[in-house]
Amino acid sequence: MKINGNFNNLQESYLFLDIANKTKDFQKTHPEASIIRMGIGDVTLPLPKACVKAMEKASIEMGIKESFKGYGEYEGYEFLRKAITDYYKEHGVQFSIDEIFVSDGAKSDLGNILDIFDKDNIVLVPDPVYPVYVDTNIMAGREVVFADANENNGFLPLPDSGKKVDIIYICSPNNPTGAVYSRKSLKAWVDYANRQDAVILFDSAYEAFIDDSKLPHSIFEIEGARTCAIEFCSFSKMAGFTGTRCGYTAISKELVRQGKRLADLWLRRQSTKYNGTPYIIQRGAEAVFTPEGREQINENISYYKHNCAVIGEALSSKNISFFGGKNSPYIWLKCPGGMKSWDFFDYLLESCNIVGTPGSGFGRNGEGYFRLTGFGSAENTQLAAERIIKTL
Amino acid sequence: MKINGNFNNLQESYLFLDIANKTKDFQKTHPEASIIRMGIGDVTLPLPKACVKAMEKASIEMGIKESFKGYGEYEGYEFLRKAITDYYKEHGVQFSIDEIFVSDGAKSDLGNILDIFDKDNIVLVPDPVYPVYVDTNIMAGREVVFADANENNGFLPLPDSGKKVDIIYICSPNNPTGAVYSRKSLKAWVDYANRQDAVILFDSAYEAFIDDSKLPHSIFEIEGARTCAIEFCSFSKMAGFTGTRCGYTAISKELVRQGKRLADLWLRRQSTKYNGTPYIIQRGAEAVFTPEGREQINENISYYKHNCAVIGEALSSKNISFFGGKNSPYIWLKCPGGMKSWDFFDYLLESCNIVGTPGSGFGRNGEGYFRLTGFGSAENTQLAAERIIKTL
Repeated sequence: MKINGNFNNLQESYLFLDIANKTKDFQKTHPEASIIRMGIGDVTLPLPKACVKAMEKASIEMGIKESFKGYGEYEGYEFLRKAITDYYKEHGVQFSIDEIFVSDGAKSDLGNILDIFDKDNIVLVPDPVYPVYVDTNIMAGREVVFADANENNGFLPLPDSGKKVDIIYICSPNNPTGAVYSRKSLKAWVDYANRQDAVILFDSAYEAFIDDSKLPHSIFEIEGARTCAIEFCSFSKMAGFTGTRCGYTAISKELVRQGKRLADLWLRRQSTKYNGTPYIIQRGAEAVFTPEGREQINENISYYKHNCAVIGEALSSKNISFFGGKNSPYIWLKCPGGMKSWDFFDYLLESCNIVGTPGSGFGRNGEGYFRLTGFGSAENTQLAAERIIKTL
Repeated sequence: MKINGNFNNLQESYLFLDIANKTKDFQKTHPEASIIRMGIGDVTLPLPKACVKAMEKASIEMGIKESFKGYGEYEGYEFLRKAITDYYKEHGVQFSIDEIFVSDGAKSDLGNILDIFDKDNIVLVPDPVYPVYVDTNIMAGREVVFADANENNGFLPLPDSGKKVDIIYICSPNNPTGAVYSRKSLKAWVDYANRQDAVILFDSAYEAFIDDSKLPHSIFEIEGARTCAIEFCSFSKMAGFTGTRCGYTAISKELVRQGKRLADLWLRRQSTKYNGTPYIIQRGAEAVFTPEGREQINENISYYKHNCAVIGEALSSKNISFFGGKNSPYIWLKCPGGMKSWDFFDYLLESCNIVGTPGSGFGRNGEGYFRLTGFGSAENTQLAAERIIKTL
């Protein structure tokens, strides 16, 4: 038996392990230090009450013969797909429920979607980037090229019309930079993709953090997207589902390549290698879209965004420039004094006892930058801001 | 963008659609007929109370800041992996918890595991067989060869030492035939795999239905399996989790190919393309292994097995020979009078108003056979038996 040799081409990521080890060592030599963790990409507020209630109820239903649910539809229950299409309508996007595919999360879908594409496609990934876009393609033996995201383009690269690519990743609001594409810039990507028969994989995991009504939540707000884009959405950051696991993928029936609907290929993939999302979890996800659920998730999102504002003010007061923080849970700061990412990590840990994420861990263009998040507690974030103002 | 052309080589399976359509047509022309569905591969009894209670409790925990859970470990929570290793010990199998990988179900793992194997492996699949073994490999462009399962070998083919294969699927107790490998026969497969560096993918989704203490529940009860086998287990049929979604995969650290531990490759695959099983669901699965949970699942399994016994007696009384029914929820009957599978489907529907699954839908060797299951209600099963005795 031969193993998949492409696994040998994966770079071992020691980013979060290195962060954990450095932090542990610092705590050992400075037992008195009260360390604040702001590198974390995970939510900390509990699930909205509406979701909890819905899952308690669904659990009870599963114990009663009359309401018990066995295998569900591979694409998810209609009640949830209906709620998702209604949510899309708020941004002027029309989908039928058979264009929505519920899953256990955007990360799974972003990886598994690659099953429907040929190995010999060229993949364009922005740099810096969420590492799994690259790793999932390397596992499949695909060629990955990068689009430079940097200060010159506001960390929002535009298509290079002279370059031919087949699969394009876009994450907006972006992880790690917090940058958000405008309608006009997204339109340039959509036109580019349609022109050369490429497909855009649009990761909208952070769309719920967008305040600015001029910014698009969905690529399907852009004309022409239905024939070139697949959108991956998540309840993880929107509703605190990182440990509850639910997401969805939207593929228009108009997206056709070589005579095949990509929605059909995806359903074939899912019905062969997936057996649906738990009924209980789907009921929890449905509750996100109730008036009660919406109010509760909005409170939580405001809480995290207030954290970002507090950090942003502290950084501004020290003349440290940054991207994101608005319309996003991430703050992407430029390391002061031309410091390198890991040097700033050490400096911030030592001077303020704050842990963040070195930007170089997200790609070549991340060097010299640093990611902080608004996902901590308000108390710790306030404390961190005070330390930054006082010490940095 | 080029789609994965291997999808064009997939056979569209119309089996269950054809069954549904034929049944609907029959009901239309015979509105008075009370049709009994025994083709169903899904459970019908509600979840054990222990699981429901555990999931209610876990839902509540998720709504409280102090007990809220964000991202969990990719491999699953230790509490569940510990419970699984304890369960293995009952059959004399020792695993450390880092050899156990929790997931959303055996079907996902059976498909996704293929990511770690090279495309150019030859795959051996028994015929008749659960169709996803074949489809998942065709999607990846692998060559599939078949091992004939038939009456001569009791639907339990043995290795052909003259044949070189790389990946071997074994499902025991088998879907659809209900046949169960003895220790001796499994040992032949383990020795064969070790000899030629092949890997056995062992699907033990139905192990909880085994009564006979001489039959192995796990391939790891067989000496030598740790260096050649991966086992896929499921709570679906064991505990009624078909709509609750949890399973686990066991890979020994001793399973090494080309210098790589397959357990490490699998963890790399899962950490890149999966984000863990919901906390709430893992708590439900953990409850399966409590004394209360075990008592409740045993009751349910006995219920389904009693159904099988009732059908078996009815068939015997009509001199219809069958396999399975013991140590398995499936009855695999030989269509009487040399009838073909679909002819018997029509005959059984017309004469007894019973719906089953034509064996030909599971492969070439399934022609002339027919699958019934014990997953219906006791009342309907009794009624079906009476109709068989009276009419067939």
